[in-house]
Amino acid sequence: MKAITRVTIFVLFVVFAFGAAYAQFAKPEEAIKYRQSVMFLIVQHFKRMGAVVQGKAAYDKDAFSVNADVIAMLATLPWEAAMEPGTDKGDTTMSSAVFDKPAQFRKTAESFQTDTAMLAGTAKGGDLNAIKAQFGMVAQNCKSCHTNFRKK
Amino acid sequence: MKAITRVTIFVLFVVFAFGAAYAQFAKPEEAIKYRQSVMFLIVQHFKRMGAVVQGKAAYDKDAFSVNADVIAMLATLPWEAAMEPGTDKGDTTMSSAVFDKPAQFRKTAESFQTDTAMLAGTAKGGDLNAIKAQFGMVAQNCKSCHTNFRKK
Repeated sequence: MKAITRVTIFVLFVVFAFGAAYAQFAKPEEAIKYRQSVMFLIVQHFKRMGAVVQGKAAYDKDAFSVNADVIAMLATLPWEAAMEPGTDKGDTTMSSAVFDKPAQFRKTAESFQTDTAMLAGTAKGGDLNAIKAQFGMVAQNCKSCHTNFRKK
Repeated sequence: MKAITRVTIFVLFVVFAFGAAYAQFAKPEEAIKYRQSVMFLIVQHFKRMGAVVQGKAAYDKDAFSVNADVIAMLATLPWEAAMEPGTDKGDTTMSSAVFDKPAQFRKTAESFQTDTAMLAGTAKGGDLNAIKAQFGMVAQNCKSCHTNFRKK
């Protein structure tokens, strides 16, 4: 529980800081590349956990936990870059719905951060059934955000 | 000091885990893209801190600390991807020196992780002179690794 609390506090701090501390992209392309870099890394680490959850790879508690920690950190990063004006155009799959429904987008982003932080905490406990359930919550977040905020 | 210890323990754990937990790239291009994504994000957050260190941006303790935390985490990531056979070829600036001098490369990678973890700890203290000194150490690491392990 302690680990969950620590990660959650970190995430909440970052959510609070977002927007204020950042928004420092020299041009829209840089914000897009920033988001894409974060998302590529999230997918890589998500796949590593997914293989374990699906029984295709052996469960190693420490390795799984590192992957979950990495995603929890990465999950705090891409949102400010998403808020950059004009970055729904060009080499991106981000829909303009981000700008049309900012409150819903922000809520979705926060859910993802909370659920990945919870997964990082759960992973430290080593209960694979609990991990699988929380992993499913994270996957649901991905899907929901992509359905609403990714170009069709 | 407590914060430094915590981050350092995390980093040491990751250094220990590296290689064993990962090495899961489907193809060399994926490992290269993984490294490039990490490096792009490191550069972005490094520039944000650099602007403060150079007096071009106002010092905000919390924002600086978030950037330092992000880099300390990212600094643990790209090394396993660097070890992937054949990834000194193709769309990459990584030199084959990585494979010719693995012990030196590993030592350089570990220095970077230790120094960024130290910066994350120092940033929490809020002493801008101490931060500048440690930021310089991190910059020195970047330079040293690029001199020895990046294509000329």
